[in-house]
Amino acid sequence: MKLVCYDRRGATHYGIVKSDRVIDLTSRLAPYPTIVDFIAGDARPIAEQILAREDGDFSYSDLKLLPVVPNPSKIICVGLNYHDHIHEANRQLNRTDTGFEYPMIFARWPESMTGHEQPIFRPKASHQFDFEAELLVVIGKDTGRYVSEETALDYVFGYSCFNDGSLRDFQRHSRQINPGKNFEKTGPSGPWLVTADEIPDPDRLEVEMRLNGEVMQKANTSLMIHSVRQIISYVTMWTPFRPGDVIATGTMGGVGFARDPQVFMKPGDVAEVAIEGIGTLRNRVEDERL
Amino acid sequence: MKLVCYDRRGATHYGIVKSDRVIDLTSRLAPYPTIVDFIAGDARPIAEQILAREDGDFSYSDLKLLPVVPNPSKIICVGLNYHDHIHEANRQLNRTDTGFEYPMIFARWPESMTGHEQPIFRPKASHQFDFEAELLVVIGKDTGRYVSEETALDYVFGYSCFNDGSLRDFQRHSRQINPGKNFEKTGPSGPWLVTADEIPDPDRLEVEMRLNGEVMQKANTSLMIHSVRQIISYVTMWTPFRPGDVIATGTMGGVGFARDPQVFMKPGDVAEVAIEGIGTLRNRVEDERL
Repeated sequence: MKLVCYDRRGATHYGIVKSDRVIDLTSRLAPYPTIVDFIAGDARPIAEQILAREDGDFSYSDLKLLPVVPNPSKIICVGLNYHDHIHEANRQLNRTDTGFEYPMIFARWPESMTGHEQPIFRPKASHQFDFEAELLVVIGKDTGRYVSEETALDYVFGYSCFNDGSLRDFQRHSRQINPGKNFEKTGPSGPWLVTADEIPDPDRLEVEMRLNGEVMQKANTSLMIHSVRQIISYVTMWTPFRPGDVIATGTMGGVGFARDPQVFMKPGDVAEVAIEGIGTLRNRVEDERL
Repeated sequence: MKLVCYDRRGATHYGIVKSDRVIDLTSRLAPYPTIVDFIAGDARPIAEQILAREDGDFSYSDLKLLPVVPNPSKIICVGLNYHDHIHEANRQLNRTDTGFEYPMIFARWPESMTGHEQPIFRPKASHQFDFEAELLVVIGKDTGRYVSEETALDYVFGYSCFNDGSLRDFQRHSRQINPGKNFEKTGPSGPWLVTADEIPDPDRLEVEMRLNGEVMQKANTSLMIHSVRQIISYVTMWTPFRPGDVIATGTMGGVGFARDPQVFMKPGDVAEVAIEGIGTLRNRVEDERL
């Protein structure tokens, strides 16, 4: 099942994608007003029945799509999770970091996120706007603490594509990279949230990032240093996940700042992240208007 | 005015402190079901009238207090914001970081927070549980982007005390310190949220941290490298603040890990953070029971 969130006359709705149409669930499932309520309420069986017997309300391509989960309680991101990206980043920054026993964790806040086919914004404050293709994970239920790697995938609701749009100079204002990762509407997810039953193995997915049609990043999630299972187990050593919480799992080699010459996204560019079994997230770059 | 949030038969309520009693606002102000709605709705004048004419519903000391804002859209924390703390941290870690042109920003997620007089938990996964006294700032309205330092304090709703309880080994699992700052129920705020009209100048407040009655940290917020105004202006270069958003402004010298011998918090210890014009936040340490 493919779920989307969208703006409907100023209100946030969610629904199921049925070919090129969307069946609105917000209006049909009063006990679950938001997608987080839907996920927490384990309401997928009801949605399956609706999907089987009803037609779409809207054309998918007409909708103003939002992030796949617009208001998660937390968005936890993993950095430096592919060896080729560590290598290119170290070369560029004259560093020699080698130990990655633990996942490197940074934060995104909800304002930094946006949806499929929405503009992503190059800010006034920085033009070092770089792309990063990533697998996005959405948690399905309260995990509690100390989840084992063996059971970690039982807590996953679904997956999506993510472009972790990053302002490279702001990432280096201090040792903590969070500012460069949190410019408003720089991190799109989509084109939809695919439920976990359609992705039997998140550790074996081809990921590709294209800028204006040219392949810039290409890898398989099997190359992640810390797998989805390991990330969930590590994070729950310190905090529980809630239904709807989001994990960005890190990007592979090929990012723009490590290239010679460097490549940064500029207005008019089209950035796409395609992941096997999920689909293709697509966004056009604009300059912010503030 | 002093506001508190508390648990009332499993529901989150908020109210005004009136001497040793609390007037419940959740039951009186239906249009503002949460403290974030109250802050966003600019409902303080109504609360002032209630405070003048009504008596308290509950004894303050009977309440199970929650964080001063239990569910902010974001909690943004500043690290290394006092020179004496930078000096002690560098000495301990054999580093020589000197440039702090920009605030160092890290994240807390809501699960890491707790309230006044509630236990704070030394986790199973680490016993390097350290204290950090800080001034906490709560935002009062949508800031938009690019707020100037001159107008920044107009967006502040109020202030509280914060103990940024930190697990030192988890802070150093990678270059990003977020894991050590996000263990469940390690970051208490309180004893209440004092509205900004009672704190004419947040840059001139005495702060003191006591462990079992012994003064461990003592400084004035005038020594902050990046003032409250500067932090708000910097963050809004990349993201807007929402009503109820929380800023932890960083700690001063005297933390436990930089001492010789090192001091870490252990079960039975009592940690207090006292700030001039606000009050004293007090928490007892327990081992987590998981």
